Amino acid sequence: MIDKVTHMLQEMLENVRKKRPLIHSITNYVTANDCANILIACGASPIMADESEEVSEITAICDGLNINIGTPNSRTVRSMMIAGKAANKLDHPVVLDPVGAGASAFRKDTAFRLLEELKFSVIRGNISEIKTLASGRGSTGGVDADAKDIIREDDLDDVILFAKAFAKKTGSVIAITGAVDIVADAEKAYLIRNGHPMMSSITGTGCQLSAMTAAFVSANPDKPLEAAACAVSLMGYAGEVAHERLSEMDGNSTYRNYIIDAVYNMTAEMLGKGAKYEVR
Amino acid sequence: MIDKVTHMLQEMLENVRKKRPLIHSITNYVTANDCANILIACGASPIMADESEEVSEITAICDGLNINIGTPNSRTVRSMMIAGKAANKLDHPVVLDPVGAGASAFRKDTAFRLLEELKFSVIRGNISEIKTLASGRGSTGGVDADAKDIIREDDLDDVILFAKAFAKKTGSVIAITGAVDIVADAEKAYLIRNGHPMMSSITGTGCQLSAMTAAFVSANPDKPLEAAACAVSLMGYAGEVAHERLSEMDGNSTYRNYIIDAVYNMTAEMLGKGAKYEVR
Amino acid sequence: MIDKVTHMLQEMLENVRKKRPLIHSITNYVTANDCANILIACGASPIMADESEEVSEITAICDGLNINIGTPNSRTVRSMMIAGKAANKLDHPVVLDPVGAGASAFRKDTAFRLLEELKFSVIRGNISEIKTLASGRGSTGGVDADAKDIIREDDLDDVILFAKAFAKKTGSVIAITGAVDIVADAEKAYLIRNGHPMMSSITGTGCQLSAMTAAFVSANPDKPLEAAACAVSLMGYAGEVAHERLSEMDGNSTYRNYIIDAVYNMTAEMLGKGAKYEVR
Repeated sequence: MIDKVTHMLQEMLENVRKKRPLIHSITNYVTANDCANILIACGASPIMADESEEVSEITAICDGLNINIGTPNSRTVRSMMIAGKAANKLDHPVVLDPVGAGASAFRKDTAFRLLEELKFSVIRGNISEIKTLASGRGSTGGVDADAKDIIREDDLDDVILFAKAFAKKTGSVIAITGAVDIVADAEKAYLIRNGHPMMSSITGTGCQLSAMTAAFVSANPDKPLEAAACAVSLMGYAGEVAHERLSEMDGNSTYRNYIIDAVYNMTAEMLGKGAKYEVR
Repeated sequence: MIDKVTHMLQEMLENVRKKRPLIHSITNYVTANDCANILIACGASPIMADESEEVSEITAICDGLNINIGTPNSRTVRSMMIAGKAANKLDHPVVLDPVGAGASAFRKDTAFRLLEELKFSVIRGNISEIKTLASGRGSTGGVDADAKDIIREDDLDDVILFAKAFAKKTGSVIAITGAVDIVADAEKAYLIRNGHPMMSSITGTGCQLSAMTAAFVSANPDKPLEAAACAVSLMGYAGEVAHERLSEMDGNSTYRNYIIDAVYNMTAEMLGKGAKYEVR
Repeated sequence: MIDKVTHMLQEMLENVRKKRPLIHSITNYVTANDCANILIACGASPIMADESEEVSEITAICDGLNINIGTPNSRTVRSMMIAGKAANKLDHPVVLDPVGAGASAFRKDTAFRLLEELKFSVIRGNISEIKTLASGRGSTGGVDADAKDIIREDDLDDVILFAKAFAKKTGSVIAITGAVDIVADAEKAYLIRNGHPMMSSITGTGCQLSAMTAAFVSANPDKPLEAAACAVSLMGYAGEVAHERLSEMDGNSTYRNYIIDAVYNMTAEMLGKGAKYEVR
């Protein structure tokens, strides 16, 4: 028996496949290829463009915008601002991935300026990155979550409260991903228990998820909370399915391919059975 | 029995393997890695360089130049111009991939300026991109061909006439790739029926083909039409061979790897049997 | 029976796995993704950042710095200088990969300026690149070693003398990789016979090795010579292990994945058995 929420998540995947949203990504050069391929895998269509002269036009022909500060520079940050404002004007969903937000003053300033000047449908990061955004302080050791920031089961209620409060403050859906994923708006949170620890041994699974989130929110614009939760659950479940395929000699590179493959082959039926979430 | 044309295509592949042309690509950061690996797979050698201070020197030590506007910016466009002029001066083959040419005024202007100031051996794109170049109007929804531009069997003769006319106007071989591929100069067109629909679910198969086209034209400089047709047929046939290897759980990411693998393992004999073309 | 040196190499791999060094790479956009994934595979953690405003801060939170001039431009070269000076000040290991150093005046000047202004723990390149650095002349045909520069068995002693002399001059460990690898400081050289010829059919195995070298030197800062030799041997042995997995239809793209997989699955025990080196 599929309950109502699960049924909605299934429809959201089908909407991405039906509508094939075109997603404009201004993202880092490390994981851009994987982001493009996972967008296609989930049913969307990717375009990357970061020249300030063209980004507002590119955004205008797209259905959603994905901003990722993985390898920012002053030129591309300017383009993020321009594209973000164009997308906001057109009411296109915009997703922010504040990669390593606390790793430098430049990244922190960039993240804060993006938050001040743009309206995001969803902000997705690890707990250290989201804490940095929320506190203005925080600490990020590189692009992975700090050990001291790892979410323990006991802390879940606190983190949910934190996510809801930050969602209320920003008007964005907040997606905090890690061993357990929390996706929250001001009122409601999804706790998602999909995924596999080995996913953290691939560069850019977070970037890929943010790109997919933009696709899901663009194809399901009326329900950004559920759309983001659906993307998070799909990514995690794809990580589980892909992990089962691994043979003894496979490592993180084959795993990377298999996760994208699993998204490509994911059906609504599979997702309905595999999604592990609770609402709080 | 292998006919004369097929025999020529086989020799062209063998020429790439023998001469190992060094190809300078000024290309996008999304698919650069795949372009480099497929160049090696077909027998060529890649170098990427986009700093204006060095591009003319880099082009000078290479055998051919591949210009791709997938993620253009004002800095790299300047480098494309400089490298293109250097390559033209040295009579090195230059290939243009006008990715998403109609997606923004900046891309359109860039494409037109490249066409005006440089001489291209081959221009390869989807039908929407080539129409944009030819008409100065056209419309491109992102980087994929527009639905209304999809070539139907009934339209093939018209598209061939169009390709020949544009080839005559530009002095370039025109390669329009899609479900059916058309490679034409002013006099003659190859209609190529290799490939698999799933190839469009991988980001950058077009970019990869353009890079390979530069390799084939550089190793077979006297026959740019046939060299481009050979690269197009090889890419498509590799897509067929790779598709046969796919298991039920494989998706677009594994397919990407298998296509490059298939190019790597392609022999002249296989290509001779697999190439599906007609001359019109 | 494992001898003392092999035991030390094993410990070095275990140190990378234990300490999980965070490595800052300023590298090319062609192979950045593979570099990040192989860093994770060996036990390290990657961060890429090339904006001049942030690189010294990023370097400060990292354990080591990897500078690669594969697709240099004036902006990123400036960032390399800033990051390199910050790393030197903090006594962090810095690795230089002088990709295609002789291919243009810009690259040569860049390489020389880096050598003059920064102190490198390790410089890793092919014989043509290292010769260019050492002589100020040299010639590099693209990013692969020149045919005339290929190291023959008869020349090994000469190349070792050359490497030791250049190590003495620069105060850096010199790693010359090719069919046979030589890793030398002023006094001692490791001759490493791991690897497989097919590794040269993958773009960026050299870049990946340089990134891993930064990880090994950062986790074993007191023994840069042995740490670099260990990374070189590991990369080569992973190439052997990965090659054995290849089926008839696999080519360079699958091989790329399998090498990273092999690094991911490499144990100290395996490395102890597989490392083929002699000290001269």
